[in-house]
Amino acid sequence: MANIEEEWLAFAKQLAVSAGEMMVEARDASAFVRDYKMDHELVTSTDIAVDQFICSRIEARYPSHRILSEESSPTMSLSSIADDVPVWVIDPIDGTVNFAHGHHHVAVSIGVYVAQRRVLGVVHAPFLNECFWALSGAGAYCNDQPLSVSGENTLRNAVVATGFPYQKTALVPIIERVSRILHHCQDIRRNGSAALDLCWVAAGRLDAYFESVKPWDMAAGTLIAEEAGARVGHYLPRGTLWPEVVNGDGLLVSTPDLFDDVMALMNAPA
Amino acid sequence: MANIEEEWLAFAKQLAVSAGEMMVEARDASAFVRDYKMDHELVTSTDIAVDQFICSRIEARYPSHRILSEESSPTMSLSSIADDVPVWVIDPIDGTVNFAHGHHHVAVSIGVYVAQRRVLGVVHAPFLNECFWALSGAGAYCNDQPLSVSGENTLRNAVVATGFPYQKTALVPIIERVSRILHHCQDIRRNGSAALDLCWVAAGRLDAYFESVKPWDMAAGTLIAEEAGARVGHYLPRGTLWPEVVNGDGLLVSTPDLFDDVMALMNAPA
Repeated sequence: MANIEEEWLAFAKQLAVSAGEMMVEARDASAFVRDYKMDHELVTSTDIAVDQFICSRIEARYPSHRILSEESSPTMSLSSIADDVPVWVIDPIDGTVNFAHGHHHVAVSIGVYVAQRRVLGVVHAPFLNECFWALSGAGAYCNDQPLSVSGENTLRNAVVATGFPYQKTALVPIIERVSRILHHCQDIRRNGSAALDLCWVAAGRLDAYFESVKPWDMAAGTLIAEEAGARVGHYLPRGTLWPEVVNGDGLLVSTPDLFDDVMALMNAPA
Repeated sequence: MANIEEEWLAFAKQLAVSAGEMMVEARDASAFVRDYKMDHELVTSTDIAVDQFICSRIEARYPSHRILSEESSPTMSLSSIADDVPVWVIDPIDGTVNFAHGHHHVAVSIGVYVAQRRVLGVVHAPFLNECFWALSGAGAYCNDQPLSVSGENTLRNAVVATGFPYQKTALVPIIERVSRILHHCQDIRRNGSAALDLCWVAAGRLDAYFESVKPWDMAAGTLIAEEAGARVGHYLPRGTLWPEVVNGDGLLVSTPDLFDDVMALMNAPA
């Protein structure tokens, strides 16, 4: 299996770099149109174009594989992730608001799953020239540099990232958790891309990350964080039908030494 | 005056670029030591080294001028800002936590004031190769590109940045304001550098920014935002002895069309 997985990884990296070039070109030329999905979630014509590019390339190269993409198949049940057919889980632009506003913190995210196993993850940030990637059991890398978590073990020194949902009705318990983090940690970051937040935990730039996200937001970054030594868990019960391996409800990823302390903050009584 | 002010600007840009090179070199070599100031505020040996570099260069070039720097003169009264002697207001590293954690969002900030007037501002981000600058009355720029605010006029579409104090006792009303922004705007960003947040409002990457900050955090960025068309004001009464022109208490900077709406959110009854 190793050889074929390495082939998938090389292909995923190529796809991610090409997708990144599409993003940079579209933004340099201001050649994109904005629209809003349900709950006032921003989507641009570049999200759609990059999604079509990635999906068409995967379909051409691996016609027997399945694809779960934020933009083209968000309601796929993914029960198929349990069988032996590889599933490519795609977020063409993670950080669409950042993309549209000229920020650097934007990524394409590509993960591959087989039989409920995280096989590989690629998160490429074209505006920062950083390609994060991991192959199960072989470690995590940024470009060619191996990654490892920060080793932070003191909550008071920890820098913790999070994000906020487009759906405003869910905000109250989230703001309560942000308040606890602010009171007990060094500081909080809201950078605007879940996939990159996970990679930044892997790189030791963040000490922890928590948020409820969708499978395509975390499919690649979670493996990258795990392979860099992060501990992965959930502070909320699973509220969706997604299989556990791509369940992003109440996702908590941190250095091993901080995990229990951050989990205690997440679940503290109000 | 214009010629001498242009000379100061050219000198400030040179200083900022050299300071940026010191930061990049120190981080590439992991050649810095961490310490904590009051309220668990992080400071590194590079903050001190960059401060000494900038202050010594200003003293050598303009011995009659005054310097207000975060690291070497934070208790200077600045009543002198009211007279005709130029005052250089310096933050050697704005975003020290980011610097120490390997983030890109880090800047050196240099502003010059004469007789309570904002004369020039330079905010250089060495890890992003972006130098923001403005000269009073002559517009704002990033590298050589003129800047202008986003023109956003709808709160629901606005991306708003803020920051949090090291002093935890002040957090409760801040979290209440964050909650209001999250409920009424597109999203919030916490990038970790006040000086750059101000420049990002100038560049149209953010639609508004609010925070209580010190003079050295806002001395340069506020002019850059103003010169790019932003409106500047305060949602809190002045709580310090700093002159109004460098008063960062409850600083609100936004597109003109959003200003009143964001101000109303800041001051809404709990």
